Amino acid sequence: MNDVHPPAAKIGYGGDYNPEQWPREVWDRDYEAFSLAHVDTVTVGVFAWAHLQPAEDRYDFSTLDAIVERATAEGKRIVQATPSGAMPPWLAHAYPEACRVDFEGRRHVYGQRHNACPSSPAFRRLSVAMASRLAERYGDNPAIVAWHVGNEYGGACYCPLCAAAFREWLRKRYGGLERLNAAWNTTFWSHTFTDWAQVEPPTVLSEHWRGPDHTAFQGITLDYRRFTSDALLGGFVAEKAAIREHVPRTPVTTNFMGLYQPVDYHRWAPHLDFASWDNYPPEDPSASRTAARMALAHGLVRGLRGGAPFWVMEQTPSVTASRDVNAVKRPGVLRLWSWQSVAHGADAVLYFQLRQSRGACEKYHGAVLDHAGRTDTRLFREVAELGREFELVGDAVLGARTPARVALLVDWDSWWAVEMSDGPNRNVRYVDVLAAYHRALWQANALVDVVPVTADLGRYDVVVAPLLHVVKGDLADRVAEVVLRGGTFLTTALSGRVDEDDNAFLADVPGPFAGLLGLRVEETDAQRPDVVNPVVLSGTAHEARHVFEVVVPEDAEVLATYGADFYAGTPAVTRVRRGAGSAWYVATLLDDGGVGAVVDGVLAEHGLAGPLADVPDVEVVERVAPNGTRYAFVLNHGAEQVVTCPFDGVDLLTGRELRSGDDVVLPRTAALVVRCR
Amino acid sequence: MNDVHPPAAKIGYGGDYNPEQWPREVWDRDYEAFSLAHVDTVTVGVFAWAHLQPAEDRYDFSTLDAIVERATAEGKRIVQATPSGAMPPWLAHAYPEACRVDFEGRRHVYGQRHNACPSSPAFRRLSVAMASRLAERYGDNPAIVAWHVGNEYGGACYCPLCAAAFREWLRKRYGGLERLNAAWNTTFWSHTFTDWAQVEPPTVLSEHWRGPDHTAFQGITLDYRRFTSDALLGGFVAEKAAIREHVPRTPVTTNFMGLYQPVDYHRWAPHLDFASWDNYPPEDPSASRTAARMALAHGLVRGLRGGAPFWVMEQTPSVTASRDVNAVKRPGVLRLWSWQSVAHGADAVLYFQLRQSRGACEKYHGAVLDHAGRTDTRLFREVAELGREFELVGDAVLGARTPARVALLVDWDSWWAVEMSDGPNRNVRYVDVLAAYHRALWQANALVDVVPVTADLGRYDVVVAPLLHVVKGDLADRVAEVVLRGGTFLTTALSGRVDEDDNAFLADVPGPFAGLLGLRVEETDAQRPDVVNPVVLSGTAHEARHVFEVVVPEDAEVLATYGADFYAGTPAVTRVRRGAGSAWYVATLLDDGGVGAVVDGVLAEHGLAGPLADVPDVEVVERVAPNGTRYAFVLNHGAEQVVTCPFDGVDLLTGRELRSGDDVVLPRTAALVVRCR
Amino acid sequence: MNDVHPPAAKIGYGGDYNPEQWPREVWDRDYEAFSLAHVDTVTVGVFAWAHLQPAEDRYDFSTLDAIVERATAEGKRIVQATPSGAMPPWLAHAYPEACRVDFEGRRHVYGQRHNACPSSPAFRRLSVAMASRLAERYGDNPAIVAWHVGNEYGGACYCPLCAAAFREWLRKRYGGLERLNAAWNTTFWSHTFTDWAQVEPPTVLSEHWRGPDHTAFQGITLDYRRFTSDALLGGFVAEKAAIREHVPRTPVTTNFMGLYQPVDYHRWAPHLDFASWDNYPPEDPSASRTAARMALAHGLVRGLRGGAPFWVMEQTPSVTASRDVNAVKRPGVLRLWSWQSVAHGADAVLYFQLRQSRGACEKYHGAVLDHAGRTDTRLFREVAELGREFELVGDAVLGARTPARVALLVDWDSWWAVEMSDGPNRNVRYVDVLAAYHRALWQANALVDVVPVTADLGRYDVVVAPLLHVVKGDLADRVAEVVLRGGTFLTTALSGRVDEDDNAFLADVPGPFAGLLGLRVEETDAQRPDVVNPVVLSGTAHEARHVFEVVVPEDAEVLATYGADFYAGTPAVTRVRRGAGSAWYVATLLDDGGVGAVVDGVLAEHGLAGPLADVPDVEVVERVAPNGTRYAFVLNHGAEQVVTCPFDGVDLLTGRELRSGDDVVLPRTAALVVRCR
Repeated sequence: MNDVHPPAAKIGYGGDYNPEQWPREVWDRDYEAFSLAHVDTVTVGVFAWAHLQPAEDRYDFSTLDAIVERATAEGKRIVQATPSGAMPPWLAHAYPEACRVDFEGRRHVYGQRHNACPSSPAFRRLSVAMASRLAERYGDNPAIVAWHVGNEYGGACYCPLCAAAFREWLRKRYGGLERLNAAWNTTFWSHTFTDWAQVEPPTVLSEHWRGPDHTAFQGITLDYRRFTSDALLGGFVAEKAAIREHVPRTPVTTNFMGLYQPVDYHRWAPHLDFASWDNYPPEDPSASRTAARMALAHGLVRGLRGGAPFWVMEQTPSVTASRDVNAVKRPGVLRLWSWQSVAHGADAVLYFQLRQSRGACEKYHGAVLDHAGRTDTRLFREVAELGREFELVGDAVLGARTPARVALLVDWDSWWAVEMSDGPNRNVRYVDVLAAYHRALWQANALVDVVPVTADLGRYDVVVAPLLHVVKGDLADRVAEVVLRGGTFLTTALSGRVDEDDNAFLADVPGPFAGLLGLRVEETDAQRPDVVNPVVLSGTAHEARHVFEVVVPEDAEVLATYGADFYAGTPAVTRVRRGAGSAWYVATLLDDGGVGAVVDGVLAEHGLAGPLADVPDVEVVERVAPNGTRYAFVLNHGAEQVVTCPFDGVDLLTGRELRSGDDVVLPRTAALVVRCR
Repeated sequence: MNDVHPPAAKIGYGGDYNPEQWPREVWDRDYEAFSLAHVDTVTVGVFAWAHLQPAEDRYDFSTLDAIVERATAEGKRIVQATPSGAMPPWLAHAYPEACRVDFEGRRHVYGQRHNACPSSPAFRRLSVAMASRLAERYGDNPAIVAWHVGNEYGGACYCPLCAAAFREWLRKRYGGLERLNAAWNTTFWSHTFTDWAQVEPPTVLSEHWRGPDHTAFQGITLDYRRFTSDALLGGFVAEKAAIREHVPRTPVTTNFMGLYQPVDYHRWAPHLDFASWDNYPPEDPSASRTAARMALAHGLVRGLRGGAPFWVMEQTPSVTASRDVNAVKRPGVLRLWSWQSVAHGADAVLYFQLRQSRGACEKYHGAVLDHAGRTDTRLFREVAELGREFELVGDAVLGARTPARVALLVDWDSWWAVEMSDGPNRNVRYVDVLAAYHRALWQANALVDVVPVTADLGRYDVVVAPLLHVVKGDLADRVAEVVLRGGTFLTTALSGRVDEDDNAFLADVPGPFAGLLGLRVEETDAQRPDVVNPVVLSGTAHEARHVFEVVVPEDAEVLATYGADFYAGTPAVTRVRRGAGSAWYVATLLDDGGVGAVVDGVLAEHGLAGPLADVPDVEVVERVAPNGTRYAFVLNHGAEQVVTCPFDGVDLLTGRELRSGDDVVLPRTAALVVRCR
Repeated sequence: MNDVHPPAAKIGYGGDYNPEQWPREVWDRDYEAFSLAHVDTVTVGVFAWAHLQPAEDRYDFSTLDAIVERATAEGKRIVQATPSGAMPPWLAHAYPEACRVDFEGRRHVYGQRHNACPSSPAFRRLSVAMASRLAERYGDNPAIVAWHVGNEYGGACYCPLCAAAFREWLRKRYGGLERLNAAWNTTFWSHTFTDWAQVEPPTVLSEHWRGPDHTAFQGITLDYRRFTSDALLGGFVAEKAAIREHVPRTPVTTNFMGLYQPVDYHRWAPHLDFASWDNYPPEDPSASRTAARMALAHGLVRGLRGGAPFWVMEQTPSVTASRDVNAVKRPGVLRLWSWQSVAHGADAVLYFQLRQSRGACEKYHGAVLDHAGRTDTRLFREVAELGREFELVGDAVLGARTPARVALLVDWDSWWAVEMSDGPNRNVRYVDVLAAYHRALWQANALVDVVPVTADLGRYDVVVAPLLHVVKGDLADRVAEVVLRGGTFLTTALSGRVDEDDNAFLADVPGPFAGLLGLRVEETDAQRPDVVNPVVLSGTAHEARHVFEVVVPEDAEVLATYGADFYAGTPAVTRVRRGAGSAWYVATLLDDGGVGAVVDGVLAEHGLAGPLADVPDVEVVERVAPNGTRYAFVLNHGAEQVVTCPFDGVDLLTGRELRSGDDVVLPRTAALVVRCR
């Protein structure tokens, strides 16, 4: 992948800015506040379509001209958005088919945003024309450091246009119906398709019997998810191409949403110049779990482009609005999480948004400037102080990379397949299990790359693959290579079950991994969430839940066994030595302690636990700058504590010298950026 | 408002009566039972459309003639209903557009009731024609003491006819699209409307992303609620006008449903001659809470027409049927609640219904006469005994008014806006908070008027306004006047946030009240329902939940502070002296004890706590007759207890003399009607 | 009823077999495994439509020819299915109206199975043509021992074709609209129909206000359920007639689903030659409750054809897949439940399926042969061992009958009516109450026939009828006869409420039973599930919940009274002697202990408790062979225990002699098949 990055002299800071929603006198107050807050970057035009093009045959760039001119004059870096994330009313009115048909089969009308049918020719034509005009008009303004196409692509459409496009997509994928019928196993329930026209999008009106995860034919649904991801991508690619006609070099991105199931970001990644995402972590009363969850998402986004730095395109300075309960960020948290973003590879950290909306559904979403426009609030003070720190650090960490030797595999196909599977257990959630394994790595302060199954595994010592339900291509061979050359592979229950078409391997479970792991799974029991089976690992009892595979070991060594039920005494965790390495199997879903014990064992085989691994709530992450300088970020997500300094270096935020072995007091929300020696 | 009241010599007693559903021989048995039960009022024709007009071109009044003749001959007062609450099958079949389109966008077909599109010309024409014919035929019968138009107006329609009517309504409200775009803040998310035809009703197919309270554009949804209320009102107004052509004086009403969110009864009130409502309190295991809830609804209905007496048009003598669980009214409860109705201003207390339905969904709804037609049941005996008491009291309390000096503000716009708001907390329910403040007033036996924000506040010493989210017109000024002239104003968290268009005030929170209250709200934290922040008020700790505003006092005195979280020690309750009065602010949602302490403090400023304020479960309410006689109602909603009599007077139900200071035994469900001296 | 049974020399064993989904080489491996497992019966063609008829004008029987030939050559008994349970894509594409319209009014498109509109002429024509061709082609193959039409009939359609068919059905039922209006009590809510065309199917778009159980007009909804059952039956009857043209004698069945609410199996039963069903018991952590539930369903199916033996057409050898959580059957459970099937009257016990699906929604549903095709698994070993036992027992129990003297009445109309009733309590579930009474009989090891209300009650000493809400025809008279001649009748709260049209009896509750029971119900209280009223019966306190009828006894003897609430001390359980017998009434819903005490009292009147009635978890069931030999099945659903043998005989599975009075050790999952002496 050929990365193109926005030019930068420091960590980018600023956010979405919509001055078209305000009178000009407010703009002056905005820029005064931006100076106080050290804002250097503004994203403009994200939802500007209606005023840029008030009618199909009429464009009006006067306001955007003024916005761009002012930002340029103020010396800000501009992220120029195309407005296709929200179409104007006239478009939906003129082209009703540009609105989506939903999973219930209902044609929508104008409303909300992120709602355009990805297969609508009218929408495609108009959105591309808009991107083209913007690029033509502003493309040579050097203040524009990046282009931001659309916004938070997502959702799905099930209209006749999408049905036709899906059939075309299938025709390309399968060539003929015979291959399609085989892939979807259509002899089951008399589903053999004899004409492409017979294929319907999988909805509650066709194959689905409860919701999006309950389908009679996993193959159809899986392909519709892939198709949807590609169809949305088609919009991005077309707009980018239109931009590229006028803007040869400025990098183009779009803002992803982290662990967002509907879109397979791995299918998108090659088409971006650099990755960016919006960091709104799910609510979790545990600060540590929230921190780990953000670290996982940062890792995923960093993994999209081979480890290159990315941008946090959005975060809220204070509250969200769209949730049932929207808590304010506690004092210090904004700074802590922003530095965590940088620690994991962000070269810019931006807000949604700079001035709070007056009306509609985001009027209570936090912003740098509130409705009263005050700069004497706790919120504004924290924003400004963080801006000052980013200035202080300058370009030190820009472009720095994470020297990870652990790979955590993420696979949208497995995510989709395991959650839409009938049997064994609907309570298994892919991200919960993925996050549990990631959290154990995070707790150990191991540096981890979160990568697709197609990634080059050659540079990793440890490959962790929870719930790798679908095994595609040569993955099993590449995993075996890791092991044979001395690496460690760890996988879990429900892995190695189906091929790319979601057809079961006609072999012992876990299919292509069975030989490598030295075992077979004979039965898969499932139990309600309140049923616990104790599993003793290294002398400590852990709780297993949900899925309990009954394992018959071939040559695998048994590390732990079930403590209850008719399979008491049979293996729950195994390891086998193969070549120079080893392969681990966890035949059930363990609690955090259990996962932690397994992961610690795996890391220990390669000495990959990081500094302060035994200190709870303290995250330590490293980045290595292009010039070889090593930066360590120390982040305290818990209460104040004293730790033993693991490096020699200087904290760039305070100038304080740190010496290895010294006691360091880490107050609550402490963040250190240590240039190591 | 010019009230017209049905003529009466005593508290009206009777109810819905549908003899058209029964053979004539049953009518005889009905009237025998009515005599036993002292029934003097019958409501006829509520669901009679199908037999009054068996086809569009055919009317048949023969049965209704017989019903009205018989009732007249029996000396009963008749409430003549128009049957528009339930259209006949032929109408829906001939005019499918008279059926509604629901919030999911689905056109309904014939079924149920209360289902006509309020914008359907056919339905309007036919329902008005029916009202006109009824008025023409029966209008000069002096036994008819009131007209009852439709039934329990409610629901909403989203059809193309309503869409067109909505656009017309908007055109009248806003004049032009520019004003509409400003009101709805449409620059947000590119929603600028350039043609009226682009405006769609807000549904799950347009702006709504979950249910009726989850909209992308609060402005559109808020206006559609107002439009819906007005559209339904249009039907009432048209039928009333048709009646008035033939019936110049007899009062016209319709039966409301108390705290019913979909219809803004304040928009309707001027169009009624007198108010009436159906009293089916929500299930609540606490008898006191249920009693307070009914008192609130009675107060709301009394407040619709400036404090004039109203009717309870329906209550069940025993069970409901439509709920998941339908408990019978315990012995004595029917009498207690009926007297409570009178205490709060009812001049008639009627049942749904007099004879129990044989089939369909109300066949198990309680009635004065059950399927066996028995008069020797507990139920019938209680009904008859209450009828006897109403006879006994005669005209004593008719027309009497409540001498309240406390106003509780209710505002449908705030109710709608605060519950459809994105942020801060979806768990905040308007009526819960309103009811909590009302309950504290009720517990103190303070006499309270429940009034709209447009009410004349000049006669109140205390104005309580919980969750006054929307501040419209000159309200803030009128509130300030109350304070300056020596009154007390109390408001809470989430008040003063938005203007009539649901756009945030560009000022410190709570907007127009900030100056009066002497503070500003800098942040609004929200937490899950299980998170409690202790607030100590007058030495007692209370529990605050859901919403926690961080207040910066200007000159407000801090009465209580938060006990936890990063804002521990900052103000949770404040008061400021202004002019001759004071203004209180409660920056969070307190539990009942906390609200009670605040409200007691407010009442204490004016000595407005009522008699027996410290006796739990005992309600004391007063009415003052036109001749100045004061009546006190003492109602025991709890277990038997002995109280100290607070008045000199005579209990009209027993003839017993009461002397102030004497011990009075109040058995469970005791109700005293005391003519005070 | 004239039963026709498949010829058999032993208990049938095998299951669904779909070799068309596999290459031919797999067939060889299948038959090797079938031999190991003693499989003698294969069901073929259930989902074969698409390959049997790849286009409307093209049939291809080549694969099925090969399948049938091979099975015949291997000496297997064949159950030949018609494939109408799953239509092919081309059919839905050519005839979109063959897809259903659902309860929400949405037209479905192709997908899933069991989805054809029962009123579609195209579907009817094509499915019947297919049945006819199959019968013509294979009808004279003596290896085919039964025909299996369709699959698990169910669901409902609300399309215009069904609306028209419903109107025709109503016309036949009621003759004229006057009778229909009376039946549905349409004077309520102005629903009088004046033209058949005005009648709409009851859906969420017409009469329903929440879900399928929440209707404004119970009469319409009840009739639509009956119509739906009959409409589906029409498909079965038409296919059977087509088969009969070519196959004069081979019995025809379809696979029922036990206690399946949407289809009234009593309306179907006369049209089957023998009954069969699919045994997938609902999840219940209690093994005993699960066993009792299966016994109830076995009894229901046996009761369909007057007590004749039936088939278990499907059960899973291991896991299901369609549930949220799919546990494996514990060791020994498959055998135990299979013998339980035989004990209750099954002459064949088959699996779904013999080889596990590779893809789609049943790929994780258990099968005799798993994806790896192993025969060395626990699962396969248990299957094979059971096959061996069935061989061992041979024809011993074939055709044997259950000598029950207790009848448990089941009535779909009451099931539908009581659960769609508005009032008194939505938490009352028919099957829960039915199962509670059945469980008490099962616990006592009483032999029970589960029969329709139209059954001949002449041969029973005890008739138990919980929740007999609807009383139709001469049932009350026939029940009275049972009592007068010395039998016992037991019924419960909510019985005797409505006639066949769901109109309330205009009489004291419980209507036609009031006289027989010697009491009347004056009020019906309902309470939330957490409210318990203690009822003391024979000195033990039991818990009553949900519904509490206030009973006024005439000459009934009070056996137990309520312990709480305002009706404390009034009757909760009564009994009256009438003629030579007695009639019991339980005025509330009792917990298991309470129901058990009542049922034990009833059984004691006739000495009908079975052997080991006091041993928990041990089921004893008898069958009497045509030659008079008595077989007793002893089944241990609990932990290992020692019981006193109640018979002299020999256990056919071990050859062990059993002597009455001896201690017998029953290990967990023990199953004895005792030929009694």
